[in-house]
Parts: sequence; C-alpha cells; structure tokens
Amino acid sequence: MQRTVVRKYDLSRVYQVLEPGPVVLLTTASSGHPNVMTMSWHMMVEFEPPLVACVVSEANFSFAALRSTREAVIAIPARGLAEQVVKVGNCSGRDVDKFKRFGLTPLAARHVGPPLIKECFCNLECRIEDTSLVKRYDLFILEVVNAWIDPVQKNPKTLHHRGYGSFAVDGAILRLKSKMR
Amino acid sequence: MQRTVVRKYDLSRVYQVLEPGPVVLLTTASSGHPNVMTMSWHMMVEFEPPLVACVVSEANFSFAALRSTREAVIAIPARGLAEQVVKVGNCSGRDVDKFKRFGLTPLAARHVGPPLIKECFCNLECRIEDTSLVKRYDLFILEVVNAWIDPVQKNPKTLHHRGYGSFAVDGAILRLKSKMR
Repeated sequence: MQRTVVRKYDLSRVYQVLEPGPVVLLTTASSGHPNVMTMSWHMMVEFEPPLVACVVSEANFSFAALRSTREAVIAIPARGLAEQVVKVGNCSGRDVDKFKRFGLTPLAARHVGPPLIKECFCNLECRIEDTSLVKRYDLFILEVVNAWIDPVQKNPKTLHHRGYGSFAVDGAILRLKSKMR
Repeated sequence: MQRTVVRKYDLSRVYQVLEPGPVVLLTTASSGHPNVMTMSWHMMVEFEPPLVACVVSEANFSFAALRSTREAVIAIPARGLAEQVVKVGNCSGRDVDKFKRFGLTPLAARHVGPPLIKECFCNLECRIEDTSLVKRYDLFILEVVNAWIDPVQKNPKTLHHRGYGSFAVDGAILRLKSKMR
C-alpha cells in the first residue's frame, strides 16, 4: 500500500471533525484483508486522548475483525464520496472487496493494521479502549492514537445521514461567541 | 406548565432526528427546578425501543439531577435557536434559571419530570437505561419512552457543532438509493 501526502492532524482537534456527526467509513483488517463499512452511530467521549464510542452491530462483517484485532480506522468522507458511502453500506465484506469495487484506495496506517482511505479528508487510527458494553449493545469505545488530514481538500462538506440514503450536507457556517469547546 | 400543539412522533423514527448529529438541549429537573444544558456528544445505540448514549460530564450541574432522577428530555433546536443554544452552553444552572434568562418555554412532559422545550421542533422524553459507564466516562444510556414533533416547524435545519461556537447548518439534502436504515 502506498503512503501519501496526508498531513498529521493534532489529536486535540479530533472532536472538531467528529462532534458535528458526519457519516464515516470504518476500516478493519482481518488476516491482511481490509474491509470497510459505513457508520453513523458514533460520538466523542473524551477530548484528549480522544475517545470515541461507536456501535458496530454483531451482524456486520466488520464486527469480528474489530473485536479480534482491536484496531480500526475512522475515515471521514466529504460530499463527493456520497455515492460510495451508500454503496459501501449496501453490501457486505463477506461477498465483496469493497475497496476495489467502489474505487477506494487503501493507504498504510502508521500505528494500526487497518488502512486509511486516501479519498477521505480525515483518517483516525484507533485502538479499542473498552469493550464492556459490546455484549449488551455492540458499543465499542475506541482511542484515537494517530490522525491525518488531507490539506488538499479545503473546507470539506460532510454528510449527515437521516435514514434510507437521505443526507443533509453541510451548508452555511455560523460563528457565535462561545466558551464551549 | 402549559401543554401545546406538539404532535406525537413515532419512536421508530427517533434515529432519523438524532443520527445526523445535531446539537441538542438536555433538560433535567431537580426538586421541581428545571435546568437545561447544551450537548453534542450523543449517538443512537438501538432503533427500537430507541436507545441513545450521551456524555454528561460530572462537572455539569445537570449531572446530579440526571443521575438521581434518572430522567431527561432531549430537545432538538433548529437554526433559529442558535444564539440560545450557545448561551445555554456558556453558563451554569447553578447560577441562572436558563429557561427564564434565554426565553425558553418549559412544557410538561407526559412520562418524565423534566420539561419539553416549546421552541424546539422535536422533544424526546428519556429514562436512564444503563449507568455502567458513568463512573468511567460520564456515559449514560437513555431509553426514549415518548417523542414529540412540532408540525409547525417544516423542514427544520439543525446545527452541528464544530467547536468554540462554530456550527455547520444543514444545507442541501441528498437522496440516494439505499438499503441503510
């Protein structure tokens, strides 16, 4: 897998890309075979080191790889990838090499086995931090151990899933005076 | 507290308003005193009955009321409430009656003590379902037991917090063919 021109992204800023609630792609790897799924059920849990909770259903092919390798990459797609995001969500890694099928380029991560996705503007290398709610809710808590941003994609507009392939795309940016981090 | 013209919202559709990742207001009530905080760290955990995970920091005044009464309301504001959302996030219920101060109208909920917020287009009455990760991460799992929608607010545009009072407002809606619920 090639490396690329992505730039390191400060871990203290991870919440700024996840807190808005974008649909993301989650990559895993099992025995050297990478896979990718679409995911909207995630949230920040801690600023730094950044912790992220997410739900990966036991019904997803990615579940076993995530559970056994304890590693994943959260890749954040901008609007231009909407078609691929939906297609990735409509099929299973059991049947398809989704990277090949949908023209997504896997790049070697630095600290984890699962690949980054070149076409995504942000990639977060993650390791499992807590599995105590996996049995009951399929809820994982991940620690982001390394993060990358693509400086070529300026002001990427993200996708927010409203169910059944309907997405709100980021529109205007409001800037208000706030103490809220 | 008055009741109003809000309409029941089907619990099977709750994920459609939370999955996109809007900033929300969380109301609690302690000894009859309602309070409200701003919250962006939440995610869906189950479709139906709808379960929602959220992080309410022990540093928040709302924490004690949520923990002891085991009830809350998640109220979803549209763009027009952006100023109030930030102001609610910039002060504490320890010092201020935020409903009065910021012109938010509490309405009696049906099944829980904390109030709905009249100005929000959607209100979700919640009871605590699981506290096993509260000690470690301030992470609560809530069950939505009743939901309301304001039919007067058509196609509300929600706010997505990017840190320090910067919000992406919903823009274009993309509709793609998907099997993803």
